[in-house]
Amino acid sequence: MIELVLIGIGTGNPDHLTLQAIKALNAADRVLIPLKGETKADLAELRRQICDTMLTNPATQVVDFDLPVRDAANPSYRRGVDDWHDAIAEVWLNALAPLGGKGRAALLVWGDPSLYDSSLRIADRLAKRIPLKVTVIPGITALQVLTAAHAIPLNDIGAPVVITTGRRLRDEGFPAGCDRAAVFLDGECSFQHLPSEGLTIWWGAYVGMAEQILISGPVSDVARQIIDTRARARAEHGWIMDIYLLARA
Amino acid sequence: MIELVLIGIGTGNPDHLTLQAIKALNAADRVLIPLKGETKADLAELRRQICDTMLTNPATQVVDFDLPVRDAANPSYRRGVDDWHDAIAEVWLNALAPLGGKGRAALLVWGDPSLYDSSLRIADRLAKRIPLKVTVIPGITALQVLTAAHAIPLNDIGAPVVITTGRRLRDEGFPAGCDRAAVFLDGECSFQHLPSEGLTIWWGAYVGMAEQILISGPVSDVARQIIDTRARARAEHGWIMDIYLLARA
Repeated sequence: MIELVLIGIGTGNPDHLTLQAIKALNAADRVLIPLKGETKADLAELRRQICDTMLTNPATQVVDFDLPVRDAANPSYRRGVDDWHDAIAEVWLNALAPLGGKGRAALLVWGDPSLYDSSLRIADRLAKRIPLKVTVIPGITALQVLTAAHAIPLNDIGAPVVITTGRRLRDEGFPAGCDRAAVFLDGECSFQHLPSEGLTIWWGAYVGMAEQILISGPVSDVARQIIDTRARARAEHGWIMDIYLLARA
Repeated sequence: MIELVLIGIGTGNPDHLTLQAIKALNAADRVLIPLKGETKADLAELRRQICDTMLTNPATQVVDFDLPVRDAANPSYRRGVDDWHDAIAEVWLNALAPLGGKGRAALLVWGDPSLYDSSLRIADRLAKRIPLKVTVIPGITALQVLTAAHAIPLNDIGAPVVITTGRRLRDEGFPAGCDRAAVFLDGECSFQHLPSEGLTIWWGAYVGMAEQILISGPVSDVARQIIDTRARARAEHGWIMDIYLLARA
């Protein structure tokens, strides 16, 4: 049986790694690094640097492999994602093949493997094809780095918080029954489509990295500034990852 | 000015510490350890052990201090919490006094300082009394350790998740507009008050610690087992911390 260890590594600051993550990395026979398909070259390089810095076990092999690209033209988002995960599972199987069905392989996952990440779903596909034990090492999420950088709590006292996506916010408005919403996977500053009255935002891009940008305030005051800053930063770096927390009064 | 560093340390496994947390601990002039008020003696001991293991800077002083206890008899939960935070702020001020208004103090926070933790609110009170810079170091939350232990994603693909409390679940039922809910601060297995039809639970107690207990399955099958296991474990250890994720079909 192969043990596949999904290691959460935080958001790009090597100091986000936990001792548990470093031990898991060094306990692996093979560390798989997806290279292509990652349009963000800075991130691929960062992942490579983390391996170089943290790996002290000379027996651990670091292996690059090419990832397929999601067909963004597929009219069904869900179907497009499913097909993509199938294709990635094939590539993982090939990358694990040299282990000969035993040993331990590690995959480095940005943030935490539980949150808006596909590694666990791809591992499920593998488990249907080969004997596989999946182990997860939790990592610091972008949301935690965002709230830490702004030095704010995620929740109000005893109150709930919704974690959602830009797409949901756009389609459904501010989540019902809740006054705080953390928004992931938003390529379009979807907060601008909400009524801004009484709405506060804590926004961050490249959180935890040297390039980190933070803006916060009433949405009516800072929406334009965030939209412009985001567009400029994206043009400058060639990519952007951002996240935000909204609170309504 | 004093810099107060709130360091998230995870859920009791010393290997949850990030490199950033270990560096912040060793960069502190004074590490403040609340001793009393922590009814869970095992946890106080664990926090002390983490300091002993991770502190290598001989100039760092570790200081115990007694915490006031919350007046659980206060008929207003919110008012009782506010008064308690005021009282804790006084104790923190006294513990910081020997710094003479400058230097760096660190406080170890279970989980992450952003999530159902009062340290940031108490720090806000201090900032009104003395010149204070608050820095937050994110830590692994119980929710991440729970999903890692069960090797499950927190969210369904592109779907939202609510983070809420046992009290809310009891008073308001399953959160609207969402099919997954992570439940913190539940002393009463509140899931048993929901219609169990189509409801799945992933439950964990003492997550990340040697005593970790995990149970998962349809609520209709495992509710009784969780309630009984929780009662037995609580009686055995004298305390329990548990958390769970619910999904409805």
